[in-house]
Amino acid sequence: MATFMDVHRGMKGITADQLKEAHEADLAVQQEEGVQFERAWADPASGNVYCLSEAPSADAVRKAHERAGHAPDEVNPVPYSV
Amino acid sequence: MATFMDVHRGMKGITADQLKEAHEADLAVQQEEGVQFERAWADPASGNVYCLSEAPSADAVRKAHERAGHAPDEVNPVPYSV
Repeated sequence: MATFMDVHRGMKGITADQLKEAHEADLAVQQEEGVQFERAWADPASGNVYCLSEAPSADAVRKAHERAGHAPDEVNPVPYSV
Repeated sequence: MATFMDVHRGMKGITADQLKEAHEADLAVQQEEGVQFERAWADPASGNVYCLSEAPSADAVRKAHERAGHAPDEVNPVPYSV
């Protein structure tokens, strides 16, 4: 397992409820790809959403988000953290 | 205070030690701008570094990082999180 930060763009106007619903949709399907979504942060002004996860690969993160109905624009492994 | 996710690009090859040193440099100056840096995640392959902070403004985050010697490329407020 490794740590990933993925980014969704173009989510301008996203609400707190929509972020919560999207995260719950991720949690509902994550096991099928072996992913554990941990946190997500949304900026309704820029439309950027950042998601932190533990997963076997970037592809698994992408597939889990796709299953939940929202493919990410970037998936970055982040092997180092403080 | 609000929550911010900022992004540094072009940090290809960053090591775990360099991330730790950069974060410590942020912690050393953050009080001057009223910022509290919380977490940071680095991808040496893409060169992206993501920093999570609590701060009075995006400008305060930018100034604190500048004082520490590493201006961010983006500072996004992230009012919603899960």
